[in-house]
Amino acid sequence: MKREKISDAVIRRLPVYLRLLSHLKRLGFRTVSSQQLGKELDFNPAQIRKDLAYFGEFGRKGIGYDVDYLIKKIDQILNLDQPVHVVLVGAGKLGQAISHYNVYQKDNMKIIAIFDHTKERIGTNVSGLTIRPIDELQHFITENNIRIGIITVPDYAAQEIADKMVSAGISAILNFAPVVLRTPEHVRVSNADVTAELHSLAYYVFNQGK
Amino acid sequence: MKREKISDAVIRRLPVYLRLLSHLKRLGFRTVSSQQLGKELDFNPAQIRKDLAYFGEFGRKGIGYDVDYLIKKIDQILNLDQPVHVVLVGAGKLGQAISHYNVYQKDNMKIIAIFDHTKERIGTNVSGLTIRPIDELQHFITENNIRIGIITVPDYAAQEIADKMVSAGISAILNFAPVVLRTPEHVRVSNADVTAELHSLAYYVFNQGK
Repeated sequence: MKREKISDAVIRRLPVYLRLLSHLKRLGFRTVSSQQLGKELDFNPAQIRKDLAYFGEFGRKGIGYDVDYLIKKIDQILNLDQPVHVVLVGAGKLGQAISHYNVYQKDNMKIIAIFDHTKERIGTNVSGLTIRPIDELQHFITENNIRIGIITVPDYAAQEIADKMVSAGISAILNFAPVVLRTPEHVRVSNADVTAELHSLAYYVFNQGK
Repeated sequence: MKREKISDAVIRRLPVYLRLLSHLKRLGFRTVSSQQLGKELDFNPAQIRKDLAYFGEFGRKGIGYDVDYLIKKIDQILNLDQPVHVVLVGAGKLGQAISHYNVYQKDNMKIIAIFDHTKERIGTNVSGLTIRPIDELQHFITENNIRIGIITVPDYAAQEIADKMVSAGISAILNFAPVVLRTPEHVRVSNADVTAELHSLAYYVFNQGK
């Protein structure tokens, strides 16, 4: 398959399409139109057709898209057609909640190890995984060729964990700590920032119609 | 203060500026330059100057921005200069983790009530709040004039909770459930979608330099 550079906006929408398509598949749908997708997702159908055409996928008029084929295609583009292993650091409440991902998601992406520095947590079990000491983080990443890390430690500890991850070979981080991580250019950081999200919402709530 | 319409992108950056400025204030800084802000946030200083000029704030050459004044100004714009009360529904691990927000954040935004439908959870305590039954959700929202809700229930329950919230007067939702919520036009929904974030990261990890 030809690998074109796809825009960040499209890459952010593909997982949403993927989830809906998998849902439709479980319900027994074999084809779906851009209108149906648009209605379910509250997206413009023309936008959906454009997004899917981006990687050479065209629905057939009056029939729509083949659900199985589209799932397979999006999986390929996102590289989810192969096992994708992830490590998580920070086994507090948030880390434990995130690690339930493994239990619910039936896909190739798996959190395969959880790390924490708290003595009492190390050796205990979360979502089927034994919590390991931070000391073992870098060796584990290198040994298992892990590329994606999740950070759910407190803000003051996040940069140090990010540094350890990056130096061991991680190139994408999903960061839940409310800090701006400094990482080399080639590392992709996604911030899941609850405080910032809430603060933005406050703007809209009290500025409606203004 | 004149209320101009500010772009979504700027509104998303203001909470990040706010957090850094509060941090600098605690460290004793009284002024800060756009260069310093840019370095800390890994943003372009010109972008920062543009964002701040948006609401009539200009740094003085050689001195920079007044930290206190800038905090006050951003607080006003985001409506955080007044108490902002939030409800959370879903007192599982994720909900409990999010509710710790109250403990860490020293601002006007507070989660003031947590709801759940599980009998065993109702009446127990999370981050200083007693978990209430879902039956009381709508009355509580109306009675307390709440505008912002957080949803941390499983996917199959999320739409029903959103409907209840909206019908009681909520106009902004931070949704952690991996579903697309259907809400009226005037309701702002922010999705904190861990699965979608992780799936997007998989694209970048294996497509570097391509």
